[in-house]
Amino acid sequence: MEKATSLYRDVLGATVSDKVPLPEHGVYTVFVELGNTKLELLHPLGEKSPIAGFLQKNKAGGMHHICIEVDNINAAITDLKAKNIRTLSAEPRIGAHGKPVMFLHPKDCDGVLVELEEA
Amino acid sequence: MEKATSLYRDVLGATVSDKVPLPEHGVYTVFVELGNTKLELLHPLGEKSPIAGFLQKNKAGGMHHICIEVDNINAAITDLKAKNIRTLSAEPRIGAHGKPVMFLHPKDCDGVLVELEEA
Repeated sequence: MEKATSLYRDVLGATVSDKVPLPEHGVYTVFVELGNTKLELLHPLGEKSPIAGFLQKNKAGGMHHICIEVDNINAAITDLKAKNIRTLSAEPRIGAHGKPVMFLHPKDCDGVLVELEEA
Repeated sequence: MEKATSLYRDVLGATVSDKVPLPEHGVYTVFVELGNTKLELLHPLGEKSPIAGFLQKNKAGGMHHICIEVDNINAAITDLKAKNIRTLSAEPRIGAHGKPVMFLHPKDCDGVLVELEEA
């Protein structure tokens, strides 16, 4: 995480956030500010971090997921279920910005883990 | 590519571009518009497509690279070389938007293939 933070802050010159622990998600986060978009740098927190398996498969790191904002996450989930897109949990959880988030199944999203976040 | 285009256009409701062949890069592209950010959907074009190997390793698809805009690509490359970040080619090439682009070595970018594009 320190190396990636340095890449975006010191080498590429972007503004980055402080490192914030999110124990309920099992990750530390650093956000790299890119206009209306952010890169989220993730580092495992705790024994059961959901990103531990990803890092075992990708020793050097890699791209874990994308996140897209929606206006109303419950309406989005109802709509997606009607379109046979599976979610990874039954209900939304509170994400890194204090807003409800929900992950969609990569098998229904062309191999990409997609997170929705209520704006 | 049709399936991914449908996911972002028909299921998630985003505006997407037409499918454009880029024979000199060995890919077809579709851009998904997300404010000042775009998702670029890629499909191989030709026998020697640079994304063929990625799709062999990732049968279901996946995330291939990120692209960050810079004001002056030659200045950025000079600066990055001074900071020991390797590039994948000696000189910039012309990318999907008709602007110079350069790829940085994933081993120097925490396992992530990073493209720079002159804005």
